[in-house]
Order: sequence, then C-alpha cells, then structure tokens
Amino acid sequence: MAGNTFGKLLKLTTFGESHGEAIGGIIDGCPAGLVLDLKQIAFEMMRRKPGQSKIVSQRKEADQVQFLSGIFEGKTTGTPIGFIISNTDQKSEDYSHIKESYRPSHADYVYEKKYGIHDYRGGGRSSARETASRVVGGAVAKQIIPHIKINAFVSSVGDVTVDKPYQELDFSFIESNIVRCPDPIVAQNMEALIAATKKEGDTIGGTITCVIQNVPIGLGEPVFDKLQAELGKAMLSINAVKGFELGSGFCGAMMKGSQHNDLYNSDGSTQTNRSGGIQGGISNGMDIYFRVAFKPVATLLQKQEVLTHEGIIVEQQGKGRHDPCVVPRAVPIVEAMAALVLADYYLLLKTSRL
Amino acid sequence: MAGNTFGKLLKLTTFGESHGEAIGGIIDGCPAGLVLDLKQIAFEMMRRKPGQSKIVSQRKEADQVQFLSGIFEGKTTGTPIGFIISNTDQKSEDYSHIKESYRPSHADYVYEKKYGIHDYRGGGRSSARETASRVVGGAVAKQIIPHIKINAFVSSVGDVTVDKPYQELDFSFIESNIVRCPDPIVAQNMEALIAATKKEGDTIGGTITCVIQNVPIGLGEPVFDKLQAELGKAMLSINAVKGFELGSGFCGAMMKGSQHNDLYNSDGSTQTNRSGGIQGGISNGMDIYFRVAFKPVATLLQKQEVLTHEGIIVEQQGKGRHDPCVVPRAVPIVEAMAALVLADYYLLLKTSRL
Amino acid sequence: MAGNTFGKLLKLTTFGESHGEAIGGIIDGCPAGLVLDLKQIAFEMMRRKPGQSKIVSQRKEADQVQFLSGIFEGKTTGTPIGFIISNTDQKSEDYSHIKESYRPSHADYVYEKKYGIHDYRGGGRSSARETASRVVGGAVAKQIIPHIKINAFVSSVGDVTVDKPYQELDFSFIESNIVRCPDPIVAQNMEALIAATKKEGDTIGGTITCVIQNVPIGLGEPVFDKLQAELGKAMLSINAVKGFELGSGFCGAMMKGSQHNDLYNSDGSTQTNRSGGIQGGISNGMDIYFRVAFKPVATLLQKQEVLTHEGIIVEQQGKGRHDPCVVPRAVPIVEAMAALVLADYYLLLKTSRL
Amino acid sequence: MAGNTFGKLLKLTTFGESHGEAIGGIIDGCPAGLVLDLKQIAFEMMRRKPGQSKIVSQRKEADQVQFLSGIFEGKTTGTPIGFIISNTDQKSEDYSHIKESYRPSHADYVYEKKYGIHDYRGGGRSSARETASRVVGGAVAKQIIPHIKINAFVSSVGDVTVDKPYQELDFSFIESNIVRCPDPIVAQNMEALIAATKKEGDTIGGTITCVIQNVPIGLGEPVFDKLQAELGKAMLSINAVKGFELGSGFCGAMMKGSQHNDLYNSDGSTQTNRSGGIQGGISNGMDIYFRVAFKPVATLLQKQEVLTHEGIIVEQQGKGRHDPCVVPRAVPIVEAMAALVLADYYLLLKTSRL
Repeated sequence: MAGNTFGKLLKLTTFGESHGEAIGGIIDGCPAGLVLDLKQIAFEMMRRKPGQSKIVSQRKEADQVQFLSGIFEGKTTGTPIGFIISNTDQKSEDYSHIKESYRPSHADYVYEKKYGIHDYRGGGRSSARETASRVVGGAVAKQIIPHIKINAFVSSVGDVTVDKPYQELDFSFIESNIVRCPDPIVAQNMEALIAATKKEGDTIGGTITCVIQNVPIGLGEPVFDKLQAELGKAMLSINAVKGFELGSGFCGAMMKGSQHNDLYNSDGSTQTNRSGGIQGGISNGMDIYFRVAFKPVATLLQKQEVLTHEGIIVEQQGKGRHDPCVVPRAVPIVEAMAALVLADYYLLLKTSRL
Repeated sequence: MAGNTFGKLLKLTTFGESHGEAIGGIIDGCPAGLVLDLKQIAFEMMRRKPGQSKIVSQRKEADQVQFLSGIFEGKTTGTPIGFIISNTDQKSEDYSHIKESYRPSHADYVYEKKYGIHDYRGGGRSSARETASRVVGGAVAKQIIPHIKINAFVSSVGDVTVDKPYQELDFSFIESNIVRCPDPIVAQNMEALIAATKKEGDTIGGTITCVIQNVPIGLGEPVFDKLQAELGKAMLSINAVKGFELGSGFCGAMMKGSQHNDLYNSDGSTQTNRSGGIQGGISNGMDIYFRVAFKPVATLLQKQEVLTHEGIIVEQQGKGRHDPCVVPRAVPIVEAMAALVLADYYLLLKTSRL
Repeated sequence: MAGNTFGKLLKLTTFGESHGEAIGGIIDGCPAGLVLDLKQIAFEMMRRKPGQSKIVSQRKEADQVQFLSGIFEGKTTGTPIGFIISNTDQKSEDYSHIKESYRPSHADYVYEKKYGIHDYRGGGRSSARETASRVVGGAVAKQIIPHIKINAFVSSVGDVTVDKPYQELDFSFIESNIVRCPDPIVAQNMEALIAATKKEGDTIGGTITCVIQNVPIGLGEPVFDKLQAELGKAMLSINAVKGFELGSGFCGAMMKGSQHNDLYNSDGSTQTNRSGGIQGGISNGMDIYFRVAFKPVATLLQKQEVLTHEGIIVEQQGKGRHDPCVVPRAVPIVEAMAALVLADYYLLLKTSRL
Repeated sequence: MAGNTFGKLLKLTTFGESHGEAIGGIIDGCPAGLVLDLKQIAFEMMRRKPGQSKIVSQRKEADQVQFLSGIFEGKTTGTPIGFIISNTDQKSEDYSHIKESYRPSHADYVYEKKYGIHDYRGGGRSSARETASRVVGGAVAKQIIPHIKINAFVSSVGDVTVDKPYQELDFSFIESNIVRCPDPIVAQNMEALIAATKKEGDTIGGTITCVIQNVPIGLGEPVFDKLQAELGKAMLSINAVKGFELGSGFCGAMMKGSQHNDLYNSDGSTQTNRSGGIQGGISNGMDIYFRVAFKPVATLLQKQEVLTHEGIIVEQQGKGRHDPCVVPRAVPIVEAMAALVLADYYLLLKTSRL
C-alpha cells in the first residue's frame, strides 16, 4: 500500500535508493514459456542510463541487470522474476552540501515531513534512478506483447516543437540523435537549446509523445480502470511529469462534437482518430497516442535559495551530475510504463469472456 | 479486476446501467463514528443530476440515494455502506433507433467486440449515469476530510476561457450560475456559447479546474502511487476526459528550471506554486490545483454517419436527451473523485509512521 | 481494505446488516456471455434460508434475490452484477433485551471496542445473515465452472459422525434429509441429537465435508496464494468456523512419508489421495476434499451470564430465533465459498501461460 | 496475481528458487522510524536454516540476509526494504536423477502441467527454501509490534504429543532442544522418534502450536478478512501444511454451546478462552492460539515408485539432503507468518476510526 507495486496481473514491485548498494525489483505474474531476449532488455537499459551523451547526466552507471530467478534455460517459468541493478557510481559525498537544507522543488522536504527522516543522499527513493527498475519491467512486458508496437519520442523541448502529425514521422530516426526526436531538423534545434541551457547551469522541460500501434480491440476495463486512466496514472507516476493528454487532449476541449467525432469506416476502423484509440475506456484497434509533459529538472548548477533545517533561507550553489533536460532519457521510461499497462490489460482481456 | 472498484483503504465499488432498474454502490473502509450529513450528500447529487437547467440533459431523475447499511443512528459504523439510486426515467424506447448500429465516438462498438454483447439501451454501463454513484462516494469522502476544501469550476467552454488565476476568483460564485463558472462575465459568455451550440444540435467541450486547499503535508506515496498519479487516474476514469495537468502542467514543459522552481519561505511554504502542491508524489501543504479536459459529447442532434452491425455506413438523425456541454454537470464529479483520492490517502497517511 | 470483498478476478463485495432494510452485494469480474440460470440461484438461496425445517431458525425470510445490473436478455454482460435481498422479517424488538449487555462468545463486545459503536440489532454485520450474499455469489460462480462438481455435506454433529469415506456415500441423498447428511442412518441420529439439544435450549457444533470433483489440473498459485490457502481463508471467514483440514489433514501429521505419499498411476493420477487433490498449492486433477469445523452457536435459550456496559455480570435468559445447530444451513455456504475460490482461480489460470 | 505477495498494508513480495543464485524479497509498507535490530533478524534466520542439528537437512546455507534499501542510519525510512539471500550451497547435480521423472507428492508434476516447464533443480520455487524470505519479513514484522509476544513450538511429532495446556509450559525452553518443544521429556521422545525415522530413510509429520499474547483488542476485519481467516491462509500457504484450527478447533465441533461459550469477567476478559482470542473475526484481547498440521516430508531416502515423463512407473532410490521431520524448522516460519498478519492488521486498525 506504500505504492511500490504497479499492475494487476503483471505486477512490478521495486525497491532501492539512488545511493544505496543496489536497486531492483520483482516481476510477478509474467506468463510462463516466454523466451526472454536479454539483449533487448540490455538495449532498453542502455537507452535510459546516464552518461550516454553530452546532454545528459554524466553519472556513470553500468546499469547491468542481474536476473536472480524466474528464468530457466532462457524461458520464463511463471515464477517471479527477481532482479537487481548495482549502484556502481554512488558518490554520496557529492550530496554532503545538501545535508542541512531543502532544495526548491525537490522531494526532500515532504519526505522528511511525512517520514520523519531525511535521507539526504541524492534524493534517495525520489531519485530518477528508481526508473531503471521500471525499464526492466517494461522490457519484459514488451516481450509479452511483441505484436504491439510502442514508440515514444521527444516532441518538444522548451518551445522547440515537432509540428508534424506523428503519421508523417519516421520512427526509425528516433534513436539516430541524442535527443530522441524523429524529425532531424527539429532534433538539431532541440540539441542546441539543451546545450545552451546547460551552459547557463539551467534546465529545461519538454514533452514526449507515445504512439502505440497494432493494438487489439478490447484492452481496458470500463469505469474506474479505463485504459486511458491506467496509462495516465502510469505516466504521472514518472518523476517530473505534470500532464497527460490522450488523442485530441486539451485541444479536444475546444472543439465541437461534429468536429471531434471519429466517423466509422465500414470495417469498424475510423476515418479520424481524435479519440486516440480508446473509446469508453477500451481500445478500439486504432493507434493509441498520448503526450506527456515534463517540467524542467529542479537541480540547477546555479546559485539558488534553499531552506535550512533551522528555517533559514540561504543561497547555495547547485552541484552534482544532473540532466539539463530529462526528456531524452525519459523516452524509454514512457515506453516501459506503457508496455507494463498494455501487457497487464492484455492478460486481463483473456478473462473477460467465458 | 474488472475495474469497478476505486480506492485502497476507502473503496467505492459501483454497479448499474443507465437503463436498468437501479444503479448503486458499496463504500467500504469508511471509518466508524462519522456523523453523516445526508443533506450534504443530497446537495451534491442535485448538482450532478440532469434536468437542472436549460443547458443540460432534460432526462428527469430524482437521483435520491437510498442507504441500506453501514449507518446506525446517524453515524457510520465501520461496516460497508450500501446504497442504491433508482432509475426513474429509463425510457429505453428512446434508444430503439440505435439498436442496429454503432454511433461514432461511442463505446457501443468496443463493448460489443470485447464482451460479445450489445446492450443498446442508452450506453448501458458506459453511460455517464454511472457517475451518480461516484458522487455519493465522493460526498461521503468529503465528510471524512472536512478540513480539506475542494472546489472545482468550469474554466473553459470551447474557446471561452477564464483567464484569471484561481486566486483572483471567488469560489462562492460557482453555484450562482448554471455553467458553474466563478467569473460572472465569462459565465455569461459560456452560457451563450452552449445555448448556440445546442441550437445547432451540436455539442462542445471544455475544461474544469479543481483547487484543493488546507491540505496536510504528507498525502501521497512515492513511486507508483504518487498523489498526482492517483488524481490523474481518478480524473481520466471520468467519461469524456482527454487530459489532466497538475500545477504548471503543459506550460511547465516550456519553462526553464530557474523559472519553474518554487522557492521556499522560511516556514516551509513556497513563494510560488508551479508544482501544484505536490512534490515527489507527496502533498507539500500548498494548494493542489489541476485542470481536466473534456471532449465534446459524442451524441449529436444532427444527422451523422453510423455503422450498422452489417458493416454499412448509413446516415442517422441523433435523438435522445443529452447535454450540449458536459462540463457544468461534471464539476461535482471532479470534486467527488478528488475527495475519494484525498480521503483514501488521508487514511493511508495514518500508517506511514510507527 | 475493511474486508468486505472476496476474490482476485471474480470479486464479491457485500454489504448489509441483519436488521437493516436489505443486504446485498456486487459481483465484479464475471465473464460476459454466461447464460445465468436464476432458478438455480433461487434453489441455493432456499437451501440456506432460515425456517426450512424444525431444526433451524424460525426466522422467516423470503430471501428473494433482486438483480439490478450486469444481466441483459438472460446473459451476463461483463459489467458488475448488483443485487439486493430485502430483510422482510427484521424484528428488532427481539433484540431489545441485549441492548445493554454483551453476550458471551458474540462479536458485540469487540465491535464496540473496535468501532466505538454498538449496533445491538441482532448482531448487525456479524450476523450469519450476511452469508446470504455469499450464496448469491457462489451460485453465480458455480455457473462459471459448470464442469466442476462441488458437494458439501454434514459429516458430524456433536459426536455423531459419518464414518465412511466419502467415496462410499451417495451425494444425491444430501438434500433428502433436513441435516444434509448423505448417510441416511447417521442423518437420523444427527436429527435426533439436534432435536434433543434444542429442547434443552442448547446448541451443538459439527463438521462439514466438501468434495470437489472434475477439477482441472493447474488451479492455484505457488507460495502465498496456494489453492488450499485460499480455500482455508474462504472457510475460516464463515461465522463459527474454528478449523479447516485438507486431505489427510491433522491425521496426516501423525503419519510417515512412506504411508502418506500418493504414488502415481501411469496416467498421472494417483493411487491414493492423501494430498486432497492439491500439490504445492496447485490442483493435480484428483478430487479436492476438505473438512470444516463449526463451533456451537453462541446464542442459547437458557439462562447465561452476560456483561453489562457498566461492567457488571448479570444472568440473562436467551431469546430470539436461532439455530440449535448451524451446520445443515452452512452446507450451501461452504459450497458457495468453494465455488468463488475455484471460479476465481479458473479465470486466473487463463493468464498463466502465453 | 501470481501470488507472490502477502499482506494488505505491510506487504512482503518474494522471489527465488532453491537452486538459483539467490532468493529474496521486498517489504513494502513498513512504517518509517523503526530502529531495526538486525541481530534479531539474523537470529530468526539461524532458527530456520538447515544444518542446525543432526535431525534436520544437512544442506549448508549461510542464510545471511543482505539488505539493499529502505534503511538509513539503522532506521526504516518508509521506502521499500529490498533484501537478498544468496544460495551458497546449490548442488544442482544432486537433482539430476529426478530430471526425468515426477516424485510422488511433490509439486513437479503440477508445475509442469500448469506452466509447461519442468525446473527440476530441487523443486525450484516450490522448495521450502522460499520460506527463508518469509522469515526475514516476519522478523521485521515482529519489530513493528514489539509488545505482542508470538511463541510457536512443536506440539506433536507423529503420535508423540504435548498433552499439557500451553499455559503450563515454559516457552523459554523452546529453544533449549533441537525439536523446539517446551516440554523437555516430550522433546526427548520426539527427538528419538525423528532419529529412528531418519534411520529408516523415512519422514514423519507433526503439529505446531502458536500462542500470541498481549494482543490489543480490535485486530481483524469483519466478514471476509476475519483475523482467523488471514491467519489460516498464512499458515496454509506454508509448504506441507494440511490443517489449521483456532482455539477449540475441531474439538469445538463436538461441544455444546453451554460448554463452549466463554463467560465474561467484569473487565471484559473471559474466564475460558475456547474462542482462541478472536470473536467475529476480531481479536478480543485474550491469547490467540492455534494449531497447524504438517504432513510428512515427501522426499524419502528409500526406494519409491516415480512416474517418468514418458508415463512409466519405475522404482527410484531417493537422494538429497532433506529433513526427516520438518516441524522443528517450521517453528520460526509459523511465527513469521503470524507476525506478518498481526503487524498488517495492526496498521490497518489505525484506520478504522476517525
């Protein structure tokens, strides 16, 4: 109930602080008989890990996943898959300067108020390092539903935005640049903006768009567990996320019904897809697409006011190894959370009819 | 697992179709000893019910809640609170014209594909009638946390938008007009837009802003069950919702860290509140505010193409009693879902320390 | 979390006090497309209801189930099945004499200490009346798994015991006598013992044996959710149950491995079945059988010491309409809970392999 | 849903096979601020581990718990406690002889049928090695409720039985002998019986009695989550358990109400305690006591018929390092599961009143 488990039938439970010995998790409910492609999992981990390029955190983590159970002769056995990821670059001394104070827009203040304890080492559990375990879970989930294609990409950094509809983009370009934007021109502008921001010791927000294709009809439960509700929860559980919109999203709120309705083709598909692939909480077979807003990273390499434990406001110079823009590294995390939701609902669908 | 239960400790489970005999639910986990104000519950039901004004559905429902258990001599006893709400105006004949076809952007197509059954009577379980049970649950939840103030209001209809920050609005005006907008001038414009849209047989979308005040520090669980994740899920589980944003939301994605960070005051409050009252998934004592996007209602009183069960596209004239704009009636639903989340996390908070 | 929901995928949530207006429940997760035999449900209700014969409580309850949702044209639709059962014979005045005191071995003392409220009307939620809703749930569950045969019967009343192994009994005799014992001679002795006990104003305990046949291999989850663990929980959640044993049970604890092991036949069945049809928490295709112990009903029609709210021990004459022996009426309840577990795990099994 | 998580607010999720690299788990929902006594945890592990004495399995496991998260400067932080226990003595070659066949009364047959995979290495997940993780969870749980005293002991081995009521036993003797029986004379007889059984290459069953003292009133939820239902599930989820009885148990089923009822003292305690400390599913402040039946271990060091994968019955000589009697080592496991239930319900109790 303390919220470290995600999923209904396919459940990911995670543990671990950024500066402890290791993080990890348990994947329960993975069907038996799945031939696990470990290279694919390692590839997803590589996409998320820090130190990949000059625009992300220079923390050096091997991020090698060690599977401890649930796999036998390359296949899942139906028993829980336990895994750990060692923290190899846990320089706690980097954080000594923040031991005595709360940084603006960080979680340390609320953690201390809630739990009565201040684990000052790099944000502890609230660090984005926790998302490495999500990527492991998501990489397994993707393999449960190999027919479903999940592609996320950076659709904006600050005010640099991909203006084309996703149908005009070539997803195979996503990994071709360090910002993970499939439009090469926009990608360059994003990269330049992040580099300039970094130089200022500042950070910048952005959005990620996720497109899910080849979705079977019927995923999602009516009422409280609508597919978009669970996807929204999944995304809003990622650090720094401030917004989620499906299909027409906030723009849809300005439209008329006669503009917004998706008229049918005779095969049950629709001519337009403002619904974003979900009707009444249930997938309708069209592409599911949604957009996720990330605020700028709170840790600055500038001077900033902090609050000491004694209640005094003092100026402090930010230090540490942080991302000037979190969205490029968040792309695999968004995909991982989407995969966990879809694989879970895929299993659930098997039980909806006799 | 079929998703008709919401909450962890305070659980609302609902049942019922729009055109069956009754809908209802069970509230489990409500603490004992709460003196229930039944008038307050009836007031919330009145806010949601159709037929309140000329701009909403003219379906006439008494929407009287009958409590069947869990209350003794005016107080909750700790046992489950069962309740039913009769469907008094269930004119199924109104729906005979849609028996043979799927309406665009409705759930009937996916329900039939998922369940193999087409309950054509008014959308069945996917009807917004289901939200009446949520309002009962939310009205009870509000009384568990009477110190926390939850105010939702219509912040836009189509392109008519409240431009002032919520701090400049007087929430006591919300119920003074039929669109539930606290800005009287904007309210008039919204009302005019809805009336004009109705005259066209069309519908229009809008947004609701919800502001939660006097929130204790510490509500929310790190990682997957962050407070904003659960609030987002709650909102995205409401019919027609396409988007959710907390605090700075999608605008925050365009900002720099140095602009976005909320600097502390010496008492731990913050000078700004772009975070929207939540840090690291946990309430920080500042106002929680978020915005919810509703698409326009799919049922039009215009001619529109529908898909017959035989796979033929035919034109059909829309009929029935529907809302030209759903947002005024959705205000109490947004509040109800917010109250359910907050009361649930309030109970959960009691268990976070020894 | 207050424990009024049972099941993982097939979930029964119940509400209602014995002396309120109605009791009822919601069955969520029932697969769509099931043709519900309502007569069968009424038959199960009739088996449980009071006033069936001279040896059970003379409370007169019609126990007619009113289904409010989830069924359309005779079939389940996949949406939650809401139902209520009116309390037609709620003579609260019968209980006025116990308003001021706690009866021995009743729940009123602990309810008051836990919840701070004393709902003195007939035990309120702790009354066995609550089990009527379980029988509804179980009757639906049985229809999800029609191939699995569940037969419970009274195997002992006091020291009158069925000595034959169940394989030598004819289950078709179970309903032929008012104690629900398939051995006609033993049944007569049980009936005589209950009648004599009733004359004394006393009550007596007994056991129920439940045999489940035609079970598919594979029901049950390893580790915490073993099939016998869930069956045990289901039985121990029934009022007055003090013990549960599967297969060889407590006798097995006195045996040697060489006596206890069930040797295989070449088709994978076993020559003996001391395991009771479950290995490692998973059904092995053999009959599942278990025994449930019920203590004697606590309400006596004798004088007995009670504790007043002021902490004084006084003598009181028992009144009311209670069963001298609960086990005959508990037979359908045991079957209902077993059916809920099996149908739930049957749905779960669909998700164990890709 | 695959059943590797136990608990509602305090949740233990475990993973690991007996012959993999490590087993382990995650404890979620442990309140913050608990000073963890790691020596006490190591002591409990020592009690469970094999190779302690001549009457238990000679497998040599260090069973050293490595905590990876959730603890900072000796205190729990409210974040999940991840831990692993390395398998240091995993001689898979010992099991090569069983690769091609199913052993009687083992789980390998049903695992293969359910999951389509035969992990032949020592029972894999169905091995009792899994219980080491439960002992870690239970040792933490005990520290959440230090005022509640939980003592389990061996009350019978085969037909050698402790005849005294538990009130006449001195629990401080439990750890004084290798069978964990507080009656020294009976302990010697048990030890002799186990030694003789071992010499025959056979195994023998037994029972464990657990006594829980200083229990607050109010633990337990009415209806499905009664305290005895959860305790019963907890015990029946332990390998080899075939029965559970609370208080008077199966004997109570032979009694009359006038004999069985526990009359009150004026302070609300009772003169007798046939109820076993629970009324209506809720603790009443008296001692909770229950008895658990364990069947004999299925692995024999005798010749025995096994079933080959080709469906042929062949004779096979048992090998490996197994316990001739499992109950001495199961004592700390019974305590651990009891502690997990009680600590969980203790947290839950905090939410039952406003």
